[in-house]
Amino acid sequence: MLAVKTPEEVLRLIEKEFKPLGRAETVPLAEAPGRVLAEPIRAQEYVPDFDRSTVDGYACRAADTFGCSDAIPAILNLAGQVLMGEGADFALSRDSCVYVPTGGAIPRGADCAVMIEYTEDYGDGTVGILKPGAPGMNLIFRGDDVFPGKEILPAGRVLTAQDLGALAAIGKTSVTAARRVKVGVISTGDELVPPDETPGPGQVRDVNAPLLTAMLRDFGAEAVSYGIVADDEQLLRQKMQAAARDCDAVILSGGSSVGVKDAACRIIESMGELLLHGIAIKPGKPTILGKAGNKPLIGLPGHPVAACFVAQLFVLPLLGRLMGRKQEDFAVPAELTESLGANHGREQITACHLLREGGKLLASPIRSKSGLITQLAGADGYFIIARDCEGLPKGAQVQVFLY
Amino acid sequence: MLAVKTPEEVLRLIEKEFKPLGRAETVPLAEAPGRVLAEPIRAQEYVPDFDRSTVDGYACRAADTFGCSDAIPAILNLAGQVLMGEGADFALSRDSCVYVPTGGAIPRGADCAVMIEYTEDYGDGTVGILKPGAPGMNLIFRGDDVFPGKEILPAGRVLTAQDLGALAAIGKTSVTAARRVKVGVISTGDELVPPDETPGPGQVRDVNAPLLTAMLRDFGAEAVSYGIVADDEQLLRQKMQAAARDCDAVILSGGSSVGVKDAACRIIESMGELLLHGIAIKPGKPTILGKAGNKPLIGLPGHPVAACFVAQLFVLPLLGRLMGRKQEDFAVPAELTESLGANHGREQITACHLLREGGKLLASPIRSKSGLITQLAGADGYFIIARDCEGLPKGAQVQVFLY
Repeated sequence: MLAVKTPEEVLRLIEKEFKPLGRAETVPLAEAPGRVLAEPIRAQEYVPDFDRSTVDGYACRAADTFGCSDAIPAILNLAGQVLMGEGADFALSRDSCVYVPTGGAIPRGADCAVMIEYTEDYGDGTVGILKPGAPGMNLIFRGDDVFPGKEILPAGRVLTAQDLGALAAIGKTSVTAARRVKVGVISTGDELVPPDETPGPGQVRDVNAPLLTAMLRDFGAEAVSYGIVADDEQLLRQKMQAAARDCDAVILSGGSSVGVKDAACRIIESMGELLLHGIAIKPGKPTILGKAGNKPLIGLPGHPVAACFVAQLFVLPLLGRLMGRKQEDFAVPAELTESLGANHGREQITACHLLREGGKLLASPIRSKSGLITQLAGADGYFIIARDCEGLPKGAQVQVFLY
Repeated sequence: MLAVKTPEEVLRLIEKEFKPLGRAETVPLAEAPGRVLAEPIRAQEYVPDFDRSTVDGYACRAADTFGCSDAIPAILNLAGQVLMGEGADFALSRDSCVYVPTGGAIPRGADCAVMIEYTEDYGDGTVGILKPGAPGMNLIFRGDDVFPGKEILPAGRVLTAQDLGALAAIGKTSVTAARRVKVGVISTGDELVPPDETPGPGQVRDVNAPLLTAMLRDFGAEAVSYGIVADDEQLLRQKMQAAARDCDAVILSGGSSVGVKDAACRIIESMGELLLHGIAIKPGKPTILGKAGNKPLIGLPGHPVAACFVAQLFVLPLLGRLMGRKQEDFAVPAELTESLGANHGREQITACHLLREGGKLLASPIRSKSGLITQLAGADGYFIIARDCEGLPKGAQVQVFLY
């Protein structure tokens, strides 16, 4: 019999027992947001590729403007203008300037750009500069932003829309991303009917399959449905084996009765190795984890709220490990709206609503007697009360992880 | 000439000038995460639909167990067992009990369930109860979770995976969601080439179109590409008109030169009304907003970092307004890793990396001279320095909005 493990022990176990799959594929840029980079991205060119002005104005030599002022402008010869989208492949002679738009190229010899507001075009081929420039002023030089070989994004990064902009800028039209892990989802329980059926006496709808499927997809994994299996060890074994054959990981949820948990343990042991039986959290204790080769076989609690928390805290990190994902979740601090007991010797996870009141962010814990809908629907996130904490007073700060 | 507006004024202007489109469509549950609910969802049934046990054990009348203990168990007649997935349509007589699994139905007359750990099956048709029950103990009653008419989720909610679980539980297989707003995206600039082309002298790749497209899709809007238009008022007018005809909103980005900005203003005025010319933020000041009917016509700065911030702070809220979206963004507090100047009379927006060090969350501002890639790639989020603030010291707390 395996001992119940703390959350930290479970996360260490996951790290130790499972290796990244190392399978990558090429993904067009437009489909890349949310995907996990399989390798670092390095620039292969200079950005910008030419020295550019960051203002509308006149490119010139700063030294030619030193000491000028509104009263005594520096008079420079206007040597023409640079057009947007064209190069400036000429040298600027001394005491000359050239008009450049924002983003325009500047000619050789120029080392600053003076904003048009501080100049006066006399219309006779000369321009007055009313404010002295300084070398580098209002310019961005070739490679200032990136240069060949510079790492733009690390492997394991989950790509954002902003990253995509940067990739477009360096001409990346596709990226090498980790393949989505394929996760078989099995629900078990004689009492379960699919969500589109009306439950008969003693029956309930299968909530875990749609819930887990949505969570997996959100996370960038692929969910494969294996439907609802009756509480029958033989049938369950067949389904688990079929799912393990076709998928990278298998999640079995339900089987709240002791007999089914035992059956799931026996099945996992027969398929490979049982690694974990029980996590010291509430809700979520009756969780099992095993592996067949590098394939995780996960048994989640039947209660959807417990299944949801365990999936969030352990299954997603495990799938992230398989995909080489390196991304931290950040929490938002909020004040508890009411005191909350917690004296379990296990970490307690509580869903909450977030409210704003007088500039403060408040977390209103959702209490309900095993109520699943009220615990899930409309919640903004969840917070964790430490194992050794006997409860939190009203006004205590909690760290809320957002859904 | 319109005056430059503060961010708060811009948000109020958006609220005042644009109304929700009120267009909804039916979306299957599996495709609903991230969609905006067009109407509140109310339960139409009881969940659970029957009184259930929350433990494995014996359902009985609490009164029959009062005063029992390990030493003096209450002896009850075992009247059978309830099977998972079947009803319990019978009445329990006094001094009797029935075995129920977790989630199983309980018979009429029973008012508590005693955990199996506190019972002993004598094998002779009687069961000893070693710990007294109390009415309601370990039970969840019909409708405890929800009942017909109870609002489960409000209109405007952006659906989460957790919401989906709740909806599956009440048999919702589809929802009425706001139609995705269709946004035409136009890039303008003689210097722009598509990201898959190699820029010639003085040219740069169009970053804004892929960046904005990804941001719009992330947000649940539909982006329609109208390509790159040269800095030509006539061409630009035709493109803007075509986009306004086919889309719910038009975003024009680029045109960093004063002439193009003026042209964009003239075009918007000729198509409807110019509402805004300039926002007091840095970067992002040269932003314009107008409308043709209820259709927003938006001119974003050409610099991708500025375009990104303005899109985040104003365009997404505007599109959210059109879709009836009601969702707050929450920020994560972090300590600045270095002091940062800000003396602009405008709100300053700075992208940052988040780092964890000794239990503290640190925000490392990304400084760079108009560098677009370094400002976008790998950033975790951004924070805002107030208009009247002259700068922040190292260690100051900032509120980081995550990408």
